[in-house]
Amino acid sequence: MLGLMQNWPLTVDKILDHAAIWHSEREVVSRSIEGPVVRTTYAEVQIRAKRLSNALKGLGIQPGDRVATLAWNTARHVEAWYAVMGMGAVCHTLNPRLFPEQLCYIINHAEDKVIFTDLTFLPTLMEHRDKMPSVKHFVVMTDEAHMKGVSLPGALCFETLVAENSADYVWGAFDENTAAALCYTSGTTGNPKGVLYSHRSNFIHTLVTMGKDVMGISAVDTVLPVVPMFHANAWGLAFSCAAVGAKLVMPGQKLDGASVHELLESEAVTFSAAVPTVWQMLLTHLRETNGKLTTLKRVVIGGSAVPEAIIRGFRDEFGVDVTHAWGMTEMSPLGTLSAPTAEIAAMGAEEQLRFKLKQGRVPLGVEMKLEDDAGERLPHDGTTFGRLLVKGPFVVGGYFKGDGGEILDDEGFFDTGDVATIDSHGFMQITDRAKDVIKSGGEWISTIEIENLAVGHPKAALCAVIGAAHPKWDERPVLLVKLNPGETSTKDEFLGFLEGKIARWWTPDDVVFVDDIPLGATGKIDKKLIRERMKGYVLPTAAPAKATA
Amino acid sequence: MLGLMQNWPLTVDKILDHAAIWHSEREVVSRSIEGPVVRTTYAEVQIRAKRLSNALKGLGIQPGDRVATLAWNTARHVEAWYAVMGMGAVCHTLNPRLFPEQLCYIINHAEDKVIFTDLTFLPTLMEHRDKMPSVKHFVVMTDEAHMKGVSLPGALCFETLVAENSADYVWGAFDENTAAALCYTSGTTGNPKGVLYSHRSNFIHTLVTMGKDVMGISAVDTVLPVVPMFHANAWGLAFSCAAVGAKLVMPGQKLDGASVHELLESEAVTFSAAVPTVWQMLLTHLRETNGKLTTLKRVVIGGSAVPEAIIRGFRDEFGVDVTHAWGMTEMSPLGTLSAPTAEIAAMGAEEQLRFKLKQGRVPLGVEMKLEDDAGERLPHDGTTFGRLLVKGPFVVGGYFKGDGGEILDDEGFFDTGDVATIDSHGFMQITDRAKDVIKSGGEWISTIEIENLAVGHPKAALCAVIGAAHPKWDERPVLLVKLNPGETSTKDEFLGFLEGKIARWWTPDDVVFVDDIPLGATGKIDKKLIRERMKGYVLPTAAPAKATA
Repeated sequence: MLGLMQNWPLTVDKILDHAAIWHSEREVVSRSIEGPVVRTTYAEVQIRAKRLSNALKGLGIQPGDRVATLAWNTARHVEAWYAVMGMGAVCHTLNPRLFPEQLCYIINHAEDKVIFTDLTFLPTLMEHRDKMPSVKHFVVMTDEAHMKGVSLPGALCFETLVAENSADYVWGAFDENTAAALCYTSGTTGNPKGVLYSHRSNFIHTLVTMGKDVMGISAVDTVLPVVPMFHANAWGLAFSCAAVGAKLVMPGQKLDGASVHELLESEAVTFSAAVPTVWQMLLTHLRETNGKLTTLKRVVIGGSAVPEAIIRGFRDEFGVDVTHAWGMTEMSPLGTLSAPTAEIAAMGAEEQLRFKLKQGRVPLGVEMKLEDDAGERLPHDGTTFGRLLVKGPFVVGGYFKGDGGEILDDEGFFDTGDVATIDSHGFMQITDRAKDVIKSGGEWISTIEIENLAVGHPKAALCAVIGAAHPKWDERPVLLVKLNPGETSTKDEFLGFLEGKIARWWTPDDVVFVDDIPLGATGKIDKKLIRERMKGYVLPTAAPAKATA
Repeated sequence: MLGLMQNWPLTVDKILDHAAIWHSEREVVSRSIEGPVVRTTYAEVQIRAKRLSNALKGLGIQPGDRVATLAWNTARHVEAWYAVMGMGAVCHTLNPRLFPEQLCYIINHAEDKVIFTDLTFLPTLMEHRDKMPSVKHFVVMTDEAHMKGVSLPGALCFETLVAENSADYVWGAFDENTAAALCYTSGTTGNPKGVLYSHRSNFIHTLVTMGKDVMGISAVDTVLPVVPMFHANAWGLAFSCAAVGAKLVMPGQKLDGASVHELLESEAVTFSAAVPTVWQMLLTHLRETNGKLTTLKRVVIGGSAVPEAIIRGFRDEFGVDVTHAWGMTEMSPLGTLSAPTAEIAAMGAEEQLRFKLKQGRVPLGVEMKLEDDAGERLPHDGTTFGRLLVKGPFVVGGYFKGDGGEILDDEGFFDTGDVATIDSHGFMQITDRAKDVIKSGGEWISTIEIENLAVGHPKAALCAVIGAAHPKWDERPVLLVKLNPGETSTKDEFLGFLEGKIARWWTPDDVVFVDDIPLGATGKIDKKLIRERMKGYVLPTAAPAKATA
């Protein structure tokens, strides 16, 4: 027997429609790419997005076609999103931080027909124009005045398209499982793979993130999404802000401490979200300028583990509460947040901070399990670590065009590639990437945990730990250290520093001082490259055994 | 093109599973029907509910079968809910406040096969047992010790069924559109009609209510749902508390001021929800006993319009924030809440109170429109009032067994039967029931507004306004007044009291003093009965015209 409630497909166009009707005058403020801070409203954004849908239709875009954006966070980017998704086409957010070769690979793989681009990226597009044959049109997200210098052949002006097209467009009216958006993973192994979101998955993700223990934003909030729309969908904020009627403040391309601080204060921002490096830059700027945060109440930080100093800095110097979050492109992206349970909320501030350092707990809608290599479930004891797998209505089921093949286990879970612990409060903590974890004598050693401790040494600039082959233990850890300029040190100094901080059998078998520790496009340590560079390396503890072999 | 995210049906069993895994030790506290306050946890509730699913299977219950509950809010009631819904059967909540004849009609119409009942309702069930032939079993929600005096033939003991059955039951694994629950509307005209919720509609409603501007509860909250599970699903709290891991405190059958106050304090409740009369009783009790509210922060009030005195009382005497809500059984039930927008939040306390007196604004997921009798949309100006229609994924599409026929308009909206205004902030205010509104010279007059003003007269105990036939104006208002004991008054005294408070043409053409103003089962004024009683009445303003006819 089926229920008799209304059939109301969960399509994201309804989110902007809601904002346009019920929060029509609520502002959307952007630091424009052209320079000035510009202001519009949800009602205007919706009308302009509908005009763009008609413009895209005029350019021959059909439902299912991929339309890309190569753009910073601005109101125009929001308009392009809803214009594309509302008409049943697929909004493909391109990450401008990728190398041009990767960008071209992704554009071709997605078969993008139109690219919306900020002025910023015209040089790259012009240089590589001939490597993206599927692209029929470029829409430059600016006005006619700024089109003057644009020499990309056939480039169209965003504002002209808006001006010349009617706002009379009926969005939606398709299956809620229709593809809405496409985002490629950074792809540390092999080529980038596409995650194809549906309207349903985005809508449910939006509702979940609106929960008080998740993003918990409200109509009275003013939200600054520093996290880019091209980076895991700005953690859903372009949807959830419209959904609740929060004032939306878009930072454009200026993410430095001074620029972010200026917007936080001038627009009276109450809530923001970004990766740790952005906040590190902000805190540094505030300290240098004796700056204040007079309206900001809460920041959500994710993308990589949040250093304790950032949480303390926000809390003690500026009275701002930090929520640590974890997710991935494959999860739309939110997976866990460190909102306290009642037991944790009853603890003292310092005890609570221990939990804020963890990635947090799942909301309803994310299933999570911890498994060993044999697929056995591991306990939630806060110390046992294992593979982290997830499941839910906004978790990837398969990659675009079948890349990677079948990616779910027998229970329908997706392997995050992370290794983690879960404690008795349900708080998950990432301890490593599965491909980086060191397997020593059948037990696992977390490279991230050792790195985080070692980098605390005052002489260390960067530290990395990798596994090196060992005849008895299979693998043993090696610590690579890049010292601060002018410093010298020894193996014993670093091993002595780690003593008592980690289990004895976790102690690296060697310390290697290097001039460079390579970072990938997203700022994370590139262990693949390090392993390549260390190919000929032999552990001192392994060498004798090898000699006798 | 369809998205490639996971297929994860939105079924409500996943809500309790989530609580059992991630908030396993979080308490569910009940004032039991037997007397003492008893304690359990979400993990226990889930295990016991699964045992009950096996028990129901053993009793022959199949997916789609209706299983009724006639019960107060307790952990056992929650267990029965999830047991029934989790196995794909339909949980039919019966309202014990209905007359036995209506109860029997509903049980027969639903073809309930099993009824879970509290000890409280055994006399009624025994008296009318032969009028409910579809019912094969009664499960008495108590233990063996309390079964001693039970003489209902074939009655089964809840605790024995739990003890004797395995917890090994796989819930879910059916279409999310599967029927989950059934609730009949009070049916002021004709027979009660059934609203058949789906798993999907309940799940989406749960997610929406978790939003910060809706119920906004959190894992750190302790929630007391005074609003019964049989009354519009306790406004979803049996789902949303489990969804966020809030401590759940169930009041059983004692809803008087002293009992509610005792639980609020002893269990450190932070959030509660009930109809105005419950709060009126609580406030009276607190004032009489000089009682305090030391943990309560917020109450949601709905079911009927919230009097200003309650909002002020909570705010000024107890520091508790009131959120006014509106909904209906047909809406799962939440429709609007008075959470402030940024503009309203910036106003002074007294100005904000004006908005708290309104029913509030819609969250994403509820579409709402205002129309005149011709189906034309009316402006959101706060003064124009018209028919209120709603649409959304948890709004009724049709009644059970097709009762009432096609109930949606051309745009898919459901007519609430209410007449309302919507202001420029999106705040809706109910001004009348459509069938009660008076149509005078083509314009509408709100009876509720006049009643609310008239009852402010110190001599008035109850007031009601109905329309009486008028040869020129079609209808004109008549005010019926029941005076306080021992009082006398005149027509002029009441009309004088209203002068300047309402538009001149809204002034009643007559005031009739009556000994009794009848109330319906839900405590609202029974205008149908009043109109019946006033059948022979002729307006003084209409009489001359009639005489000359």
